[in-house]
Amino acid sequence: MRDRKLYRVGIPLAVVAGAFLLAMSCADGGGQVSGDVGDIAQARGLSQADVTAALKTYVPTGKMDEYLLFSSAGHGGQVLVIGVPSMRLLKVIGVFTPEPWQGWGYGAEDTHLVLAEGEMNNRPITWADTHHPALSETDGDYDGQYLFINDKANPRIAVIDLRDFETKQIVTDPLMASNHGGAFVTPNTEYVIEAAQYAAPLDGSYAPLSEYEEKYRGAITFWKFDRDAGRLDLDQTFVIELPPYWQDLSDAGKGPSFGWAFLNSFCSEMATGGIESGNPPFEAGCSANDMDYLAIVNWQAAAEVAAQPGKTVQIQGRRVIPIQTAVEEGLLYFAPEPKSPHGADVTPDGTQIIVSGKLDPHATIYSWEKIQQAIANQDFSGTDDFGIPILNFDAIIDGQVELGLGPLHTQFAGNGVAFTSLFLEPSVVKWNYEQMQVIEKLPVHYNVGHLAAAEGDTKSPDGNYLVSLNKWSLDRFTPVGPLLPQNFQLIDVAGPQMQLLYDSPIGIGEPHYAQMIKADKLNVWQTYPEIGFDPRRMAPAEDPAMPGEERIERRGNEVHVYMTAIRSHFTPEHIEVNQGDNVVIHLTNVEQALDATHGFAVDKHNINVSIEPGESQVIRFTADQAGVFPYYCTEFCSALHLEMVGYLLVKP
Amino acid sequence: MRDRKLYRVGIPLAVVAGAFLLAMSCADGGGQVSGDVGDIAQARGLSQADVTAALKTYVPTGKMDEYLLFSSAGHGGQVLVIGVPSMRLLKVIGVFTPEPWQGWGYGAEDTHLVLAEGEMNNRPITWADTHHPALSETDGDYDGQYLFINDKANPRIAVIDLRDFETKQIVTDPLMASNHGGAFVTPNTEYVIEAAQYAAPLDGSYAPLSEYEEKYRGAITFWKFDRDAGRLDLDQTFVIELPPYWQDLSDAGKGPSFGWAFLNSFCSEMATGGIESGNPPFEAGCSANDMDYLAIVNWQAAAEVAAQPGKTVQIQGRRVIPIQTAVEEGLLYFAPEPKSPHGADVTPDGTQIIVSGKLDPHATIYSWEKIQQAIANQDFSGTDDFGIPILNFDAIIDGQVELGLGPLHTQFAGNGVAFTSLFLEPSVVKWNYEQMQVIEKLPVHYNVGHLAAAEGDTKSPDGNYLVSLNKWSLDRFTPVGPLLPQNFQLIDVAGPQMQLLYDSPIGIGEPHYAQMIKADKLNVWQTYPEIGFDPRRMAPAEDPAMPGEERIERRGNEVHVYMTAIRSHFTPEHIEVNQGDNVVIHLTNVEQALDATHGFAVDKHNINVSIEPGESQVIRFTADQAGVFPYYCTEFCSALHLEMVGYLLVKP
Repeated sequence: MRDRKLYRVGIPLAVVAGAFLLAMSCADGGGQVSGDVGDIAQARGLSQADVTAALKTYVPTGKMDEYLLFSSAGHGGQVLVIGVPSMRLLKVIGVFTPEPWQGWGYGAEDTHLVLAEGEMNNRPITWADTHHPALSETDGDYDGQYLFINDKANPRIAVIDLRDFETKQIVTDPLMASNHGGAFVTPNTEYVIEAAQYAAPLDGSYAPLSEYEEKYRGAITFWKFDRDAGRLDLDQTFVIELPPYWQDLSDAGKGPSFGWAFLNSFCSEMATGGIESGNPPFEAGCSANDMDYLAIVNWQAAAEVAAQPGKTVQIQGRRVIPIQTAVEEGLLYFAPEPKSPHGADVTPDGTQIIVSGKLDPHATIYSWEKIQQAIANQDFSGTDDFGIPILNFDAIIDGQVELGLGPLHTQFAGNGVAFTSLFLEPSVVKWNYEQMQVIEKLPVHYNVGHLAAAEGDTKSPDGNYLVSLNKWSLDRFTPVGPLLPQNFQLIDVAGPQMQLLYDSPIGIGEPHYAQMIKADKLNVWQTYPEIGFDPRRMAPAEDPAMPGEERIERRGNEVHVYMTAIRSHFTPEHIEVNQGDNVVIHLTNVEQALDATHGFAVDKHNINVSIEPGESQVIRFTADQAGVFPYYCTEFCSALHLEMVGYLLVKP
Repeated sequence: MRDRKLYRVGIPLAVVAGAFLLAMSCADGGGQVSGDVGDIAQARGLSQADVTAALKTYVPTGKMDEYLLFSSAGHGGQVLVIGVPSMRLLKVIGVFTPEPWQGWGYGAEDTHLVLAEGEMNNRPITWADTHHPALSETDGDYDGQYLFINDKANPRIAVIDLRDFETKQIVTDPLMASNHGGAFVTPNTEYVIEAAQYAAPLDGSYAPLSEYEEKYRGAITFWKFDRDAGRLDLDQTFVIELPPYWQDLSDAGKGPSFGWAFLNSFCSEMATGGIESGNPPFEAGCSANDMDYLAIVNWQAAAEVAAQPGKTVQIQGRRVIPIQTAVEEGLLYFAPEPKSPHGADVTPDGTQIIVSGKLDPHATIYSWEKIQQAIANQDFSGTDDFGIPILNFDAIIDGQVELGLGPLHTQFAGNGVAFTSLFLEPSVVKWNYEQMQVIEKLPVHYNVGHLAAAEGDTKSPDGNYLVSLNKWSLDRFTPVGPLLPQNFQLIDVAGPQMQLLYDSPIGIGEPHYAQMIKADKLNVWQTYPEIGFDPRRMAPAEDPAMPGEERIERRGNEVHVYMTAIRSHFTPEHIEVNQGDNVVIHLTNVEQALDATHGFAVDKHNINVSIEPGESQVIRFTADQAGVFPYYCTEFCSALHLEMVGYLLVKP
């Protein structure tokens, strides 16, 4: 019978042996290396569902994860890269926060230049509250080339190149006090969308809260992306002024809704808090109304308007389309949406927008076709206090579906299937927005914020994996102090019923959103293409140290050291300078082997650089202290790694 | 038969069902939620060994890991906490590197004070090359109270309290240019051992390499630990001068060898490098001799000598026992050891020391009894250039066992069983040091440095799990750029043969050593014991904000804000100050629920504080910019988390 099975479906012999062992699990004594499947499951208290979950998530040595999950690290300020289905943390990418293992902000001049781009009001900002990563798209699908991510606390966007997984650019938005509705990309990454959260004067000035309606404003910035340069282009970037409501999430239209963007606004009450003075706190004041607004923005037309003379005003060096102009030009409309909306998620075919109001148990399904008709027919219920036309709610929705308590964010699986997080239940609800019915609920642990489905916000979702980004973990993990990890739960959504597969603790940061891409879509560099390469310019370095040309050149009080690193030595091994000299080290890793990274640390100088194979970096510092300072390789690169050292000698 | 099995060993019905399914895997179609075990294994290409490995490492939701692995993050500067057997990263503890998610060095005054303790030569040092974590011990076993870790690049030791997993103290060692042989504790944590690596003048002055033998020195510091205070006590700390050799690892004697410490020295050639001048590079110069030295130090006697007047010299404010005094007082001996030794590991019973020379294929087993006899008999082969007696090699070893290429580090499993890492093969060798024979080798992926066995360096190893800390991962993981993660491989060592269970990528740092402790040994606080608690002093805060007493007090140009945080608001929600005012926020999280952490960020001010339930912190900054700055909760704490906000208004 075992032979027949082998013949019929070609099960590997080992698996058949496993099958036999399992059937025989207690008849034979076990004890062989791999143990006995039945005995192990029993000994570890694994249920049948646990056993299948274990097999669905286990990636054996030598095999690789199928997907990469790019997650924000929340107020950790970085990006997390996690393999799916194993849920293993493959890399923490240094983005807004200096990180020494990667040499991010610890001596490599280029990394300091990128971090310096992120200064605000001339103050270095060395962390971020990263919320929403956005993979670059071509024709509405992830193309695996770039990743963008926003900073809520200090309105900024970072650009990461997915060839080497390094941050290449940070841009700041001085008009905003805070952002939340970013980063979201248009279907060909023409623009990166960033929307303000908490309102403030756009010119950065002081104004009392008593002048909130007159002087405080919201804004939405459309950052132009230059794909060839791999940089956001400030000159082609424009801003649209918004009322002082607070923007939550954004999404870009696609297919029939291409050219438009959709943004939630909440706190349209324009509450200004003040619990200490007997006013309603923000939590109450911003939740008083039954309806807030979905902002509907024509970014394609806005780009043309922004290019016309006299249609924009300059605020802090940015081109801003005033609200009135946006209204006159037909760039901006509001749709009423149920209370305290969080997500505004465009369906894969671009024909509908699904909005969930976290204080309303329903998801509201807006029809793009009906929105267009209502705009054409000027089917408005009126305008808001700032003259923005409000579309007639009943005229533009396909319907509402009761999902449960605290619906936040929706992802898609194709064929009308959607998944929405329910923060308060807490669970994930699987439903069909075409048939307008709930299919199934799965409890999660605990308090889920966003969801990330495999390519679940593209025009072609994969419909196999879903990750629930849970904010509280409570009793899920071995205690590690009063600050608990978050809990990413992997869910199998390929079958007729959802199955919870895996709990993965996030012990570095508090992620908000993540995107999951098929790993084979990326074109990752495993080493730099040539020796003496500059990762920031992604081109050969201008003045690199090259093998055979190592030297020390004094230029006045500037000492240039051309140094190479190779297993297991630096050349040169001695650097002698005078106290007060400026030292400039041109350092090149001349290795060409995969994984042959070297580190370069100078003791007591706060310098640690990571140089990957081929990489060249420049390290500048002042030798302001006399003494003897070893420099050495901080990556365990070879058996004689501890001997990969030199001495910096600083003469008084 | 199935009933008999149930009856006989009580396998859960679900598992039996699973057994049946697996046996029938191709006969039935599968398709139920949990899928069909056989079909899943086949579809995912899992071998029988993979299936058992998956079941041995899978921890289902609601169950917890049995062990905690405390690992250095290498030049990431932090400590990693990993659950075993799942190998999930539960937490990254902020130690030497500022980390905003934990609010470590981002505005909470106490965290800045701890980080400031780590300044060297008045220069802030904001990273570390952490190498060796050491769990506190009582009677030679981990007691789960404290964790110590060293910084190689900037000789320092940090103290972490395992009640709240926060760093409480950083001490600096100005005598050293670099350390490696730390942190290692004595059996009751009387002292934390720290040994210098690269030699330099102890007084921190400049000296040319031509004066290396005269002016450069090594050192070993014994940091006294005050367990009640939870701090290292500088006043009771002492140093022993060493020759300018380079120290690698250390270990403390236990049982019969209690009171002694053992340190490897390498580069006893006193090579000074200079490849650029035609000298042999360090890698060659430091590997020329066949023998280096094992330093044998009587720390118990040394503590008494250090307390005697005239026996020590003061160098940079530290009590130093000169080499000559150490020799005269019988505190310091050398034993020859084969070339370029890395590990010096004391057996669980304390009767033997196992040394592996990474350029020698053998492990050398030293007998503590024979060492004592040789010392008593003055059985010396001579002295080194500094007058330190060298014990007769043949008189003190029990033997040598050929293990393989590049032996680095040894851990224990009891009953004479040891595991040694072989960097060059690369593999882990299981052998018996009593029977002096190799039992088995297991290939690892790749280039293993240290090993960490369950309680494997205590007097009572558990002998079930072993982690191989591999430095290169090459083809093991989905590509994430030219900088690759390291690879921790979990190995089942409970059975007669080792089984590789799991590959876990380390994508944040490059760990060197780790220790694995039974999780139930820790007494972890899940919230702080009372509202208004100061984590640094581990006591009630001196001037905390308390509920009902929130207020704003102006004291000259200092504005004191007494603020509380609770779901979902801060009190007060408005802070209005004048430009130039010094703002002091006394912030208390008045929650008492597990996991009810709040964050506190001030936009554009580089401030982000994490306050756990009950915690109180002080945040000081100067309001040097006029404008409107929202402050908000950075931990997604409730459905109305986005409304947990206030406004800092700075009047020009």
